[in-house]
Amino acid sequence: MRLSQYFLPLIKETPSEAQIASHRLMLRAGMIRQQAAGIYTWLPLGLRVLQKVEHIVADELNKAGCVRVLMPTLQPTELWKESGRYDALGKEMLRFKDRADRELLYSPTNEEMIVDVFRGYVKSYKSLPISLYQIQWKFRDEVRPRFGVMRGREFLMKDDYSFHANVDDAVREYWKMYDVYHAIFKRMGLQTVAVRAETGAIGGDLSHEFHVLAETGESAVYYDKKFDDLREGKITMTGDEQRKLYAAADEMHKPDACPIAKEDLREARGIEVGQVFFLGNKYSKAMGVTIAGPDGQNITPEMGCYGIGVSRLLGAIIEAGHDDNGIIWPAAVAPFDAGLINLRSGDAKCDALCDSIYAALAQKGMDVLYDDTDERAGGKFAGMDLIGLPWQIVVGPKGAEKNMVELKNRKTGEKQELSVEAMLATFTKA
Amino acid sequence: MRLSQYFLPLIKETPSEAQIASHRLMLRAGMIRQQAAGIYTWLPLGLRVLQKVEHIVADELNKAGCVRVLMPTLQPTELWKESGRYDALGKEMLRFKDRADRELLYSPTNEEMIVDVFRGYVKSYKSLPISLYQIQWKFRDEVRPRFGVMRGREFLMKDDYSFHANVDDAVREYWKMYDVYHAIFKRMGLQTVAVRAETGAIGGDLSHEFHVLAETGESAVYYDKKFDDLREGKITMTGDEQRKLYAAADEMHKPDACPIAKEDLREARGIEVGQVFFLGNKYSKAMGVTIAGPDGQNITPEMGCYGIGVSRLLGAIIEAGHDDNGIIWPAAVAPFDAGLINLRSGDAKCDALCDSIYAALAQKGMDVLYDDTDERAGGKFAGMDLIGLPWQIVVGPKGAEKNMVELKNRKTGEKQELSVEAMLATFTKA
Repeated sequence: MRLSQYFLPLIKETPSEAQIASHRLMLRAGMIRQQAAGIYTWLPLGLRVLQKVEHIVADELNKAGCVRVLMPTLQPTELWKESGRYDALGKEMLRFKDRADRELLYSPTNEEMIVDVFRGYVKSYKSLPISLYQIQWKFRDEVRPRFGVMRGREFLMKDDYSFHANVDDAVREYWKMYDVYHAIFKRMGLQTVAVRAETGAIGGDLSHEFHVLAETGESAVYYDKKFDDLREGKITMTGDEQRKLYAAADEMHKPDACPIAKEDLREARGIEVGQVFFLGNKYSKAMGVTIAGPDGQNITPEMGCYGIGVSRLLGAIIEAGHDDNGIIWPAAVAPFDAGLINLRSGDAKCDALCDSIYAALAQKGMDVLYDDTDERAGGKFAGMDLIGLPWQIVVGPKGAEKNMVELKNRKTGEKQELSVEAMLATFTKA
Repeated sequence: MRLSQYFLPLIKETPSEAQIASHRLMLRAGMIRQQAAGIYTWLPLGLRVLQKVEHIVADELNKAGCVRVLMPTLQPTELWKESGRYDALGKEMLRFKDRADRELLYSPTNEEMIVDVFRGYVKSYKSLPISLYQIQWKFRDEVRPRFGVMRGREFLMKDDYSFHANVDDAVREYWKMYDVYHAIFKRMGLQTVAVRAETGAIGGDLSHEFHVLAETGESAVYYDKKFDDLREGKITMTGDEQRKLYAAADEMHKPDACPIAKEDLREARGIEVGQVFFLGNKYSKAMGVTIAGPDGQNITPEMGCYGIGVSRLLGAIIEAGHDDNGIIWPAAVAPFDAGLINLRSGDAKCDALCDSIYAALAQKGMDVLYDDTDERAGGKFAGMDLIGLPWQIVVGPKGAEKNMVELKNRKTGEKQELSVEAMLATFTKA
């Protein structure tokens, strides 16, 4: 993409309304624009990252056998009367009437509707297990929306619902999803910890929250230091062994009743990006779902549900990866793989070299943002650091004479003078 | 995808609420489920097609230099007071108040918001032209939602807005998009005609509607028969020449004042799937947008806007391609490239042959739906015809002995007995 043909409105000043780094950087990097409290337009750069995050989530779920659907944003409130949750979410649930005076709501979560889909078609345990997920916009009318996409009102969420013939199958799926979640976040370059959590308005008997570890995290999390050792490869354990290690969200952690020694306990700050629930038959029973069971008797399916805050993840990734100059994207979710800076646009040699590098990188399957504008060098460097692409390739008139470029690693700051061929050789074909 | 692990709830009975073929077939083929009047859940098969259609639209727009953004579904009503359209859409526009008593609306279209985005950042004609598009859910509270996704209330729309320094540039972009639209619909296997249309609530000076030609189309369209000759390759004309040919929507066609001879006029039925508008400065002026012009004076940008009914297209594609047995998907938008039918699941030879065919087709980059269930043969054939994948590969115990399969073309109905190797050779690597 040529920057001269792109829409990347960078902001030099620090926006006064932004209290945390990710919010500030997303505004400054031209990723989002606020349209109302907690409601954002995703500008081109922000949307690219959002789509990459969405793709990773969907790809890992598909590999795990989950099947994708898409429920509408609006739904009739009748289903919520059936489940008994019509009032449970209070004013966070946006309700209103359509022109025919029927009450609708903007989905804050979709347990009721997925149960309605399920009961419309599934008649026998033979169709189980089934896990249906969607990635769709939700709305929760927060009293005090803040921190940009970290606590917005309209937000993109992945919600997954599984149905099982018995408790054992549902619990097995729960732990499978626990592992899938670790794989999803790892693929995005994130360090996460899963902690035992309360189930809140969703309900159910067992729940874990997944937290991205970041100094600016909003919650305290407590966990066995062996999780750090595992992540650093110092020890190995089976999945079963790991699940028995202590890990608790703030509200679940009781210092006086903590089962492990103080020196084995780690306290860290985390940003919650996902939560998994074993629901039991809370919704299926309330909504009267029965299917044929294996022994001819009707059964009520057991359920699990599994959420990931897709738009929120962008804030968490930035909180976990930035410096004073801007964002530092993990490669897997970077909006472009590299930035190409032409220090003298209009100079025939620089232009020709940039064009050939741009074409060669595209040939390798790389998405490159090519700054072909006539801004001054300082502005180009600052802008490229701000948007945080993993690599910067700098072409200037002196280097162009000798077929040399500068290759900068955004994360380490390391710069190398390389021939064009050597620079290209550092990137393997995707 | 193995059917035993998928969620494809086919319906044998003809749903009584469906008045037209596409609605009936989308319900029967397990593509959509109605949740409220004009509000649907997209089941896995439907979502796959929706995503393919969305991908084609986005890909062609990206190639044309349009830049993708994503605006929220909800927006404050203030912008609509600025543009003067607060009351223009009447009760079709869903308005309501949030918990802080601020009025919001569910976007039915986004001219106001995109102008707000534009004016927030663009200060000079040097940044023009710029064309920003999104593919996002919209809501229009139709009095009488009907025909499934053809006239739903919550629907997926591509809306694109371009900004220009002068009228000439805006008109040039208009005709460029006119050509891009033809390319988009052609890639989906559709025959479309573009007809001069009224501008309605959107406004502006020049507009064309794009209609998919289908006998069941809801509108009459009138056009010079040379369009048919062009499509059939009988004649060639430049773009400029084509644009001068007569083509009019029903409300624009005046039989007594038609400029071409009756024998040159074609009347056909069409389904509107897109519309392009040259807006002039209607919105930019009302919302007070000025930018620096080329001669130092401030100017008000000229605009165009360009819509495609993405979810509606699925209905149109089915109306244009189905028979008594079900849907006939054009290859480019088919939910899977082929269906593989195992006539005796559980038989070791049939299972092994199906597994190897499934793997070989995946190797070629093909998405295959493999019916590995134990339903009877008749049900498998009927289901595969209903969902309309371009190719069916049938494996039975007799053929498996001789390494032979049956290859059926869903559109022509033609069946061939082929060796597995010969069948595989008919599919080239994607």
